[in-house]
Amino acid sequence: MPDHPLQITVWGENLHEQRHEKVRAVYPEGMHNAIADALRSGLGSRAEVRTATLDQPQHGLTDEVLGNTDVMTWWGHIGHQMVDEEIVSKVQQRVLEGMGLIVLHSAHLSKIFQRLMGTRCTLRWREADDKEVIWTVAPTHPIAQGVPQPMIIPSHEMYGEFFDIPVPDEVVFISNFSGGEVFRSGCCFHRGKGRVFYFSPGHETYPIYFQPEIRKTLCNAVAWAHQPELFSVDTSHCPMTPTGWFERSA
Amino acid sequence: MPDHPLQITVWGENLHEQRHEKVRAVYPEGMHNAIADALRSGLGSRAEVRTATLDQPQHGLTDEVLGNTDVMTWWGHIGHQMVDEEIVSKVQQRVLEGMGLIVLHSAHLSKIFQRLMGTRCTLRWREADDKEVIWTVAPTHPIAQGVPQPMIIPSHEMYGEFFDIPVPDEVVFISNFSGGEVFRSGCCFHRGKGRVFYFSPGHETYPIYFQPEIRKTLCNAVAWAHQPELFSVDTSHCPMTPTGWFERSA
Amino acid sequence: MPDHPLQITVWGENLHEQRHEKVRAVYPEGMHNAIADALRSGLGSRAEVRTATLDQPQHGLTDEVLGNTDVMTWWGHIGHQMVDEEIVSKVQQRVLEGMGLIVLHSAHLSKIFQRLMGTRCTLRWREADDKEVIWTVAPTHPIAQGVPQPMIIPSHEMYGEFFDIPVPDEVVFISNFSGGEVFRSGCCFHRGKGRVFYFSPGHETYPIYFQPEIRKTLCNAVAWAHQPELFSVDTSHCPMTPTGWFERSA
Amino acid sequence: MPDHPLQITVWGENLHEQRHEKVRAVYPEGMHNAIADALRSGLGSRAEVRTATLDQPQHGLTDEVLGNTDVMTWWGHIGHQMVDEEIVSKVQQRVLEGMGLIVLHSAHLSKIFQRLMGTRCTLRWREADDKEVIWTVAPTHPIAQGVPQPMIIPSHEMYGEFFDIPVPDEVVFISNFSGGEVFRSGCCFHRGKGRVFYFSPGHETYPIYFQPEIRKTLCNAVAWAHQPELFSVDTSHCPMTPTGWFERSA
Repeated sequence: MPDHPLQITVWGENLHEQRHEKVRAVYPEGMHNAIADALRSGLGSRAEVRTATLDQPQHGLTDEVLGNTDVMTWWGHIGHQMVDEEIVSKVQQRVLEGMGLIVLHSAHLSKIFQRLMGTRCTLRWREADDKEVIWTVAPTHPIAQGVPQPMIIPSHEMYGEFFDIPVPDEVVFISNFSGGEVFRSGCCFHRGKGRVFYFSPGHETYPIYFQPEIRKTLCNAVAWAHQPELFSVDTSHCPMTPTGWFERSA
Repeated sequence: MPDHPLQITVWGENLHEQRHEKVRAVYPEGMHNAIADALRSGLGSRAEVRTATLDQPQHGLTDEVLGNTDVMTWWGHIGHQMVDEEIVSKVQQRVLEGMGLIVLHSAHLSKIFQRLMGTRCTLRWREADDKEVIWTVAPTHPIAQGVPQPMIIPSHEMYGEFFDIPVPDEVVFISNFSGGEVFRSGCCFHRGKGRVFYFSPGHETYPIYFQPEIRKTLCNAVAWAHQPELFSVDTSHCPMTPTGWFERSA
Repeated sequence: MPDHPLQITVWGENLHEQRHEKVRAVYPEGMHNAIADALRSGLGSRAEVRTATLDQPQHGLTDEVLGNTDVMTWWGHIGHQMVDEEIVSKVQQRVLEGMGLIVLHSAHLSKIFQRLMGTRCTLRWREADDKEVIWTVAPTHPIAQGVPQPMIIPSHEMYGEFFDIPVPDEVVFISNFSGGEVFRSGCCFHRGKGRVFYFSPGHETYPIYFQPEIRKTLCNAVAWAHQPELFSVDTSHCPMTPTGWFERSA
Repeated sequence: MPDHPLQITVWGENLHEQRHEKVRAVYPEGMHNAIADALRSGLGSRAEVRTATLDQPQHGLTDEVLGNTDVMTWWGHIGHQMVDEEIVSKVQQRVLEGMGLIVLHSAHLSKIFQRLMGTRCTLRWREADDKEVIWTVAPTHPIAQGVPQPMIIPSHEMYGEFFDIPVPDEVVFISNFSGGEVFRSGCCFHRGKGRVFYFSPGHETYPIYFQPEIRKTLCNAVAWAHQPELFSVDTSHCPMTPTGWFERSA
C-alpha cells in the first residue's frame, strides 16, 4: 500500500446538469460528484478525491491542483471548445510527466484526448436506448480484475466503430450494442511517462455511474493509472550525452 | 506483380460434406472447392490454387506440396484429432520459414493453430442463427482494403469472447452477434518469418464462402500473407557469431 | 501494379545546405534532392517525385500539392519553428485522410510528428562519429524486405533511448551505437487512415542518403506507406446513425 | 498488500553448477539459490520462495507444488531435452490458468518457452566478454520501476537479434552489446490468464544474479507476473451458451 493516499482530481464539465432537468434527475449532485463518490467508496483510505469544474477559475485546474494530482478523470461533452488551450497544454504536460488520465465517454472529443492521440477521435453514435454488453478481452489486465464477464448496461447511447484513435496499447473491453455495432470501449495508451485509459460508458441521461460494476471498473482504472515511482529520466528536452556518460554516472 | 503466380494450397477436412446431407446441400463440391474457387476468381492469373484433404495420403501435404506452397488456408472441425502430428510439425516449420497461413472458423481448435499460438484457443459458441455484423477496426490494413463497412452475415454460428489467443499483432475485424456477444473475428499474427491470419466466418451449414465480400476478404488475406522476398536470416538454429562477423561479411 | 504512378513529395528544410559549407560538400544538390533521387532510382516508373522546401510560398505545400501527394517525406532540423502552424494542420489532416508520411532523422522534433504522436519526441544525442549498426527485428515487415541484416553506418550522430514516442505499432529496426546506446530507429504508426514511418538515419554531415541499403529502405517505406485504396468511411465528423442504417444501405 | 504471501517456485536446472568448477566458483550455492535469495531479500514478507531442480522426482514440480505456485522462474541450458514432456504440459496449463512465469537467459530454448511462443526462439550468441548495456524503453511498465537507466553488465555472453519470438506484448528492455549487436532483453507476453516475462541476463559464468539492479528487476518481474485475482472465465473448453445466458446469470 502506498505511504500516502493517491491524489485524485475528478474533472467535470457540469453543464448538462445545470441546463437539463432530465440530467439533473439522474445526477442531482452532478456527474462529477457521482464519479468522485464511486472512487471514494471503492478506494477508501487509499485515495483522496477532489472535484474541479469548467466554471471555476482556470477550470479548477490551477498549477497547485495539477501539481498535486496523481490521477485525473475527465468528463466533458458540450463544453469542449470552452476549455482554455493553456490549461489543456498544462494537463498534457502533466500526463507526459507521469500523471494518470481517465477519459470518459463523450470526452473522446475533448481537446486533451485529441492532443494526446494525434487523431480525430471521431466515432458513430445514436441515442436510441441500445442495450450495451461489455466484454473483457484482456483477462490479465489489472483494469479487468474482479469485473464481471460481461457487464450489461440496460440502456445507453450507442458508440460505434470506426473509432478514429491510434491502435490502443491494450484493448481491455469491447462492447456489443443491440443495434448491431461494436466498440472498443476500454482502451489503454501510454504517453510519455503517463498512463491513459479511455472508457466509453457514461452518457449523461442514464444512471450508469451508479452501477456497481462500472464503479469497480473506474476504481481499477484509477489504481492502474497511478505509478508509485515514476521513470527517472527527464524527457523535457534532448540531452547531449558525451561518450562514456553513463559509466561515469553509474 | 510477382514474376510467377502465388502457389496456394486450400486444405479442407472434407468430413461434414461427406457425412451430412445438410452440408452437402450448401457445399455440393465441398467447402475446400468453394474456397479454392473464391481465390481463383478473385486472384486470377496472380495465383495457382490446388486443394488437399484429410483423407489423402499425408493429408495431401507431401513435402513437395508443402515446399511449393506460398500460402495455405486451413478449414477443419470434427477431424482435428485425425491430423497426424508429424504433418502438423511440418506445416508449423513451413510457417516459421515464411509460408503464409489462413486459419478459418472452427480451425481455431486445429493442432496447427494451437501450436502456433501456445494457448488453448477456446471460445464460446452457439448455433442459433445469430446475425453477425463484421466491423473493420484497422482501416490501414491491407486485408481491409475494399471491404465494405460493415459486412453482414444474415445467419451464422455465434463465436464469442473470451477467445483464448495471444494478443493479436493486428486486430482487423470485430464482430457483433445479435445475441449480444462480440468476437475478434479477423486477427493477424507474425510467427517466425511467416504471417498468419485467423478469420472466423465459415460455419459449414451456411453459404458464407459464397458471399462476395467474404470472398474478397479471403483474397486480401492470401495476398497479405504472401511475401515476395523472405527474410534472409537462417532461424533454424542459434549461430555463434564472433566479434566483427558482420563487418567481415558486409 | 497501380494504374498511375505514386505521387511523392519530398519535403526538405534546406537550411543547413545553404548555411554550412560542410553540409554542402556532402549534399551539393541539397538533402531533399538526394532523397528524391533515391526514390526515383529505386521506384522508377512506379513513382513521380517532386520536392518542396521551407523557403517556398506555403513551404511548397499548396493545397494542390497536398491534394496530389500520396506519400510525403519530411526532413527538418533547425527550422522546425519556422514551419507555419496552418500548413502543419493541413499536412496532419492529409495523413488522417490517408496520405503516407515518412519522418526522417531530426524531424523527430518537427511539429507534424509531435502533433501526430501527442508526446515530446525527445531523445538523447551526441555528435561523436559513433558507428551505428541497424538490426531488423520485424522480419515479416514490408519495409524490411531485401534489406541486409545488419545495415552499417560507419559514422553517425548517436540517437539514444529513451525516445519519447507512443509505443510504435511495429518496431522494424533497432540500432546499436558504438558508445553503448540503443535506439528504435525504424517505427511504424497508424494514424486515422494514414501510415507513418519514422526512420532515424540521416544526419546532415554524413553521406547516409547515398548508401544503397538506406536508399532501399526509403523506397520500401514509401511503397509501404502508400495505400492503393483508402478506407471508405468518412472520419471527419461523428455521424448519427439510426438503428438499421447499415442494413438499409447494404 | 495481499492477504497471504506470494508463493514463488524458483526452478533451476542445476547442472553447470555440478559439472563445472568455474560456475561453482561464481554460484557456490547454485544459481537457483542465488535467484531465490534475490527474491527473498527484495520481496521480504510479501513472498514465500522455494526452489526445485531437474534432478528431483518430477523435477520438483509435483502437482502439489504446481498448484501452490503463483509465480515460477525458470533457468535451464544444457538440460532442456531432459525435461519431461508431461511436466512441461502441466507447467503450460498452469500458465494458461494464471500462474506467472519468468523465463531467464538460456531458457529461451526451454520446452516450456517454445511451447508458449509457438516459434523457434533462436538467436545469435557469442561468449567473448561483451559489455551489455540495458535500456528501458517502456517507462510506464511496472517491471521498469526504480530500475536505473541504463543497467550495465560489465561482461556477459552476447545474445543478438534476430530473436525468433512472436512480437512481444510489451518490450521493456533493449540491450546494447559492445560487439555491435542489439537484443530485446526484457519482453512481456500474455498467454491465457497468465503473464510471462523473458529476461535475458544471467549467463552461468558471470555473477549477474548478484547485481543489485538485476535483483531489483527480478523482484519487479515476479510482482508484475502475479495477479491477486484471476479472470473468472473457465477457458479449459468451449462452452455452448444459449441465447440470453448472460442475462439469466446476471
